[in-house]
Amino acid sequence: MNYKIIANTIGWVLIVEAAALVLPLICAIVFAEPEYMIFIVCILICGILGAALTLPTIKNKTMFSKEGFVTVALSWIVMSIFGALPFVFSGAIPNFIDAVFETVSGFTTTGASILTDVEALPKSMLFWRSFTHFIGGMGVLVFLVAILPLSGGSNLHLIKAESPGPSVSKLVPKIKSTAKILYTIYIFLTFLEIVLLHIGGLDMFSSLTLSFGTAGTGGFGVLNSSIGSYSPYIQNVITVFMILFGIDFSLYYMLLLGKFRSVLRSEELRAYLGIILFAIIAVTVNIRPIFNTLAEAIRHASFQTASIMTTTGYSTQDFDAWPALSQTIFVTLMFIGASAGSTGGGVKVSRVLIFVKSIFKEIRIAAHPKSTHKVTMNGRPVEHTVVRAVNVFMAAYIMIFVVSILIVSRDGMDYTTNFTSVAATINNIGPGLAKVGPTQNFSLFSPLSKIVLSLDMLIGRLEIFPLLVLFSPSSWRK
Amino acid sequence: MNYKIIANTIGWVLIVEAAALVLPLICAIVFAEPEYMIFIVCILICGILGAALTLPTIKNKTMFSKEGFVTVALSWIVMSIFGALPFVFSGAIPNFIDAVFETVSGFTTTGASILTDVEALPKSMLFWRSFTHFIGGMGVLVFLVAILPLSGGSNLHLIKAESPGPSVSKLVPKIKSTAKILYTIYIFLTFLEIVLLHIGGLDMFSSLTLSFGTAGTGGFGVLNSSIGSYSPYIQNVITVFMILFGIDFSLYYMLLLGKFRSVLRSEELRAYLGIILFAIIAVTVNIRPIFNTLAEAIRHASFQTASIMTTTGYSTQDFDAWPALSQTIFVTLMFIGASAGSTGGGVKVSRVLIFVKSIFKEIRIAAHPKSTHKVTMNGRPVEHTVVRAVNVFMAAYIMIFVVSILIVSRDGMDYTTNFTSVAATINNIGPGLAKVGPTQNFSLFSPLSKIVLSLDMLIGRLEIFPLLVLFSPSSWRK
Repeated sequence: MNYKIIANTIGWVLIVEAAALVLPLICAIVFAEPEYMIFIVCILICGILGAALTLPTIKNKTMFSKEGFVTVALSWIVMSIFGALPFVFSGAIPNFIDAVFETVSGFTTTGASILTDVEALPKSMLFWRSFTHFIGGMGVLVFLVAILPLSGGSNLHLIKAESPGPSVSKLVPKIKSTAKILYTIYIFLTFLEIVLLHIGGLDMFSSLTLSFGTAGTGGFGVLNSSIGSYSPYIQNVITVFMILFGIDFSLYYMLLLGKFRSVLRSEELRAYLGIILFAIIAVTVNIRPIFNTLAEAIRHASFQTASIMTTTGYSTQDFDAWPALSQTIFVTLMFIGASAGSTGGGVKVSRVLIFVKSIFKEIRIAAHPKSTHKVTMNGRPVEHTVVRAVNVFMAAYIMIFVVSILIVSRDGMDYTTNFTSVAATINNIGPGLAKVGPTQNFSLFSPLSKIVLSLDMLIGRLEIFPLLVLFSPSSWRK
Repeated sequence: MNYKIIANTIGWVLIVEAAALVLPLICAIVFAEPEYMIFIVCILICGILGAALTLPTIKNKTMFSKEGFVTVALSWIVMSIFGALPFVFSGAIPNFIDAVFETVSGFTTTGASILTDVEALPKSMLFWRSFTHFIGGMGVLVFLVAILPLSGGSNLHLIKAESPGPSVSKLVPKIKSTAKILYTIYIFLTFLEIVLLHIGGLDMFSSLTLSFGTAGTGGFGVLNSSIGSYSPYIQNVITVFMILFGIDFSLYYMLLLGKFRSVLRSEELRAYLGIILFAIIAVTVNIRPIFNTLAEAIRHASFQTASIMTTTGYSTQDFDAWPALSQTIFVTLMFIGASAGSTGGGVKVSRVLIFVKSIFKEIRIAAHPKSTHKVTMNGRPVEHTVVRAVNVFMAAYIMIFVVSILIVSRDGMDYTTNFTSVAATINNIGPGLAKVGPTQNFSLFSPLSKIVLSLDMLIGRLEIFPLLVLFSPSSWRK
């Protein structure tokens, strides 16, 4: 294990975090909140520690797959612990485990909260809370790769470990340029949403925080009613942007290059939009009797479907009170998740597609043993290693899911709460059903459950393997 | 598709069913119930139809994989429809869909019931209901292979399609002899339980029906309180036999041959017993406060753990009222299920083992890409095709699970009910939690849900592929 390069990279992560904390500091100064001192202290802590870690010169810059996984896993844990400090120091979230839960929830773009009264927090703290969504959405290591002169091997292994989806597609031959392109698209789309929300009458603070929450498909709001009290225009803008941020970013790059055909040919995109459309229709029909007009039913059905499918977790309504069919559709969408290569979580549409296709292949083989049918994606055969990786991902996912439910159920809550609390965290959604429904929060859980759910959020965001490699004894043997 | 050999085999299945109906006929005569006439009518229907189907001489006796799957799937559907006739004709279960649900539940050894008052049924009907568990446990086609002079190809494909587990182990070179050995062990163990229950003071009717329910890991009782009102001795005997019937039957054959080492080396057996022991301890600790003595807590914890893990579904207590941790353990055990090659259902311990091992292999590869570590079972490497089949099985299983929950949730019941009703049927357990808990039944569901849950039971018992091949258009294309 090349400890020096790991420490060096984590040092850079802390420096980026110190830089990120400048924004909430500005927010505190603008709103004349006394918390500005706390952000200065936190910036100094992160900055000095980060600088100390990056100072030693590294001779051996080689980074293998193992180091890539370990670096990413440790970076996210370190980032969350230091990101929790403003909440602890300011007394906004005095309990350290609660503060880490909230920060992990932010960086992993989950949006699950232990806060019972969001509106009681200072604006600068809410700003930092929402900004963690933006940082975590595209990933801090992708950002590092875009700006730092790291070696080729490091770039690839870091991006692989941090990016969601069954396979990483390089947009351009150089991984550094790929990272830059992705971040540019990300920032542009977020900027567009901020402008559209501001035009709709939202103040700059709300426009920024809500856009950060949409961009990262996070879900932290700044009001206790989440998105429920905003105008239909604001809700509709957010619906559209949630769907946009759940699309594979490489498709936007293809659009820029004018490759419209490739975009339209994307099976994942078609499946993603198809599932959303189908779910909106089914939910609208199901909840129609609750609302006065069809338009209202469509608006809430669209918002909630987009929010759950993209794993954002915003809500305009208490869908825990909606009929059972809608709830079941939402729980199903929670697992499917957004597209690979987007900022959304869950299993990802492309994995589900490969999964389903391999079943049909196997039925065909069972019926016709000599069939040489292969699983294809966008017209090309899927490599055997990808199919295997998808299957192993599912296996690990299920195992972690079951163990988490078992531990969480020690707290004695009902099965729906236990099941959906794990589903909502491992898939980076935010709210679940029953005691963790959209009008509730995660404060009821014991400290052990909060730690387990925090790990589930990290496991979900980093797609399992980085954390498993980090905690596996075989990684640390010589 | 060789339609003639399929029709011929289904004909034999009906003849076996006619023969099986002789037992409840005897029961009706012994208890002087007027239902004896109904059994005579049903025997004639099955016998005449079966004879008509078997009469034509078949020139082409070749049966490929595809015909094997289709034959098994159709046999089980036909068997269930004709097995439901006594309930419909006698008015015990006048609704046809309900009667088919109950019969499918019997043959698939699920034990889920739509009856609200079991004790109101005539004894001969209860006898037939329990006897379906015994027939379905080891499988009617395994029985046919044991007694009929079928060609070698048919034997293998039929047994493969009907037997549970990731791979079929031939005990002896001839598949016909293997089927005979399996049935002999099955009958002997059932006989032993009947004797032990009778010694414990149970009348012959109860000893027979409860033993049938245990042998097939079914779960239909003859009292509304399931097993709750019997003596601790009876409960303990049933606990032991549930565990015994959840063990791979080929291990009993090895015991008979004196190969004790091979038995002890079986990883599946060790994992199976290990999980049961662990679950009993955890549940005992969890439910201890409910009971007066530790012994009582251990007895109920052991009974319920064995009942759920082996997918029998008997109950001595309303475990829906037990603490959340115990319930979550039970839901987890529902999915793991019994051993491959036993009469139990669920995913099967060996599949779970291969599944978990392939995760650890993949973590090792992630950390050390040059690792050549292989998944092993009982000291030998597992063939790649088996690992792949396990993964595809899991994929299909999850897909069917999700679709079923979506359809069932249209009835508007709570998520725990919907989730556990599908879990309890696809894993062939019987009771679930909440509205389908051990003191409840499946009568609340709509006809559509009952049909879906009936198909889930068949899919679970036949391990997915026979029914998928039957309903797949590609199987029927030339």
